Amino acid sequence: MAGTLHRKTAPVVIKASGLKLQFCTNETQATREGFVKKLQGMGFDISAAEVTAPAPAACRILKERSLRPHLLVHNDLVPEFAEIDKTNPNCVVIGDAAENFTYANLNEAFRVLIGMEKPVLISLGKGRYYKETDGLKLDVGAYMKALEYACDTQAEVVGKPAKMFFESALAEMGVPPQQAIMIGDDIVNDVGGAQRCGMRALQVRTGKYRPCDENHPHVKPDAYVNNLAEAVDIILQQL
Amino acid sequence: MAGTLHRKTAPVVIKASGLKLQFCTNETQATREGFVKKLQGMGFDISAAEVTAPAPAACRILKERSLRPHLLVHNDLVPEFAEIDKTNPNCVVIGDAAENFTYANLNEAFRVLIGMEKPVLISLGKGRYYKETDGLKLDVGAYMKALEYACDTQAEVVGKPAKMFFESALAEMGVPPQQAIMIGDDIVNDVGGAQRCGMRALQVRTGKYRPCDENHPHVKPDAYVNNLAEAVDIILQQL
Repeated sequence: MAGTLHRKTAPVVIKASGLKLQFCTNETQATREGFVKKLQGMGFDISAAEVTAPAPAACRILKERSLRPHLLVHNDLVPEFAEIDKTNPNCVVIGDAAENFTYANLNEAFRVLIGMEKPVLISLGKGRYYKETDGLKLDVGAYMKALEYACDTQAEVVGKPAKMFFESALAEMGVPPQQAIMIGDDIVNDVGGAQRCGMRALQVRTGKYRPCDENHPHVKPDAYVNNLAEAVDIILQQL
Repeated sequence: MAGTLHRKTAPVVIKASGLKLQFCTNETQATREGFVKKLQGMGFDISAAEVTAPAPAACRILKERSLRPHLLVHNDLVPEFAEIDKTNPNCVVIGDAAENFTYANLNEAFRVLIGMEKPVLISLGKGRYYKETDGLKLDVGAYMKALEYACDTQAEVVGKPAKMFFESALAEMGVPPQQAIMIGDDIVNDVGGAQRCGMRALQVRTGKYRPCDENHPHVKPDAYVNNLAEAVDIILQQL
């Protein structure tokens, strides 16, 4: 069957086989709804409940710890925090704010942090950079480091590869880590993060994958697969 | 004589006594000429040749190593680099660019760096933040950390407390470190930097000075003085 399965139909095949499925993304430039809509438009069978993303994970943390965030995030992500009290902030949440990473906004977030006895900075990921059609862009991790240094503090990172992030995806499915498999293209964020959480992990040789990943000093996937379809084939064969 | 000497007349008194004098500043929002003009306007006896500042120090490094910078600096500092070849950049020089720290400019500096086999980032200081009339602002060090993280590199810091910076001030005066005394308000940048260079250093209990500086874990000044005038008094008494 290998090669005959298209990546867009892979989710359908997985779900039809009775397996549970959760999409784990570090996307913070859109709400889960926006993200799902984009993927549905591309032909993927996916619903918002099947997506684990940093912003909803951060909202859970904010509620649990009674934190009221000052947001430095992308405009399209703001609705994700609609139900969160943002008056009189006692923490800063930073995401990939893109055009919102202005000098004024960075100074404002900094002032909120430096005004606290112990600054609380929650970062929706720690990516270094990413590529867009008009070139490479600094990712949230770079701005997180700027604020960490200025405030002499350490951010709490939500999103892959944080252990808690994978645990919340497992909780959504009601599956223990030993019974779950992560399929991803990022050797550190996907494979390393999932393994640290007790899951097995396959690296696909597509997307972010680079041949040098196979010599990574710390992370070794449980197996390599050429693409998502091949991963699904192998998993189904072993049921 | 203590207390009768005003800080603005201190330079006059020092020079009249036959001592050599050099001003060491981390100012990177203006050229040396602009900086001197501001101080002259405030009544200080000072000339550009008496000022050691990060940008001229960086220019020396750029020339020595045939580096052609992409500049991410304050508009008012650009003239300092007038004689430097900036075509086809092979390094990035970052200063306190203030309003020039835009999302677009940071991405552009990042792209220059990430395009190099081994990124060369020269930072005119590594301050965390500073205060202006309209509030606290992130300083160059925060943006330096952002670029360091994104490019997985380490910046070369020009300016206090870099040893080379003090050495170049000593060279300007033609004085060995054992015969020089640093007077400053910053425990790490002024006192620590000068001492690491073999100079003695006095901390004035004005400006940036904080009582907790006196318990600093690593740096201990050779003496404390209440202000610049008192420092000059003590030095002149020991001649």
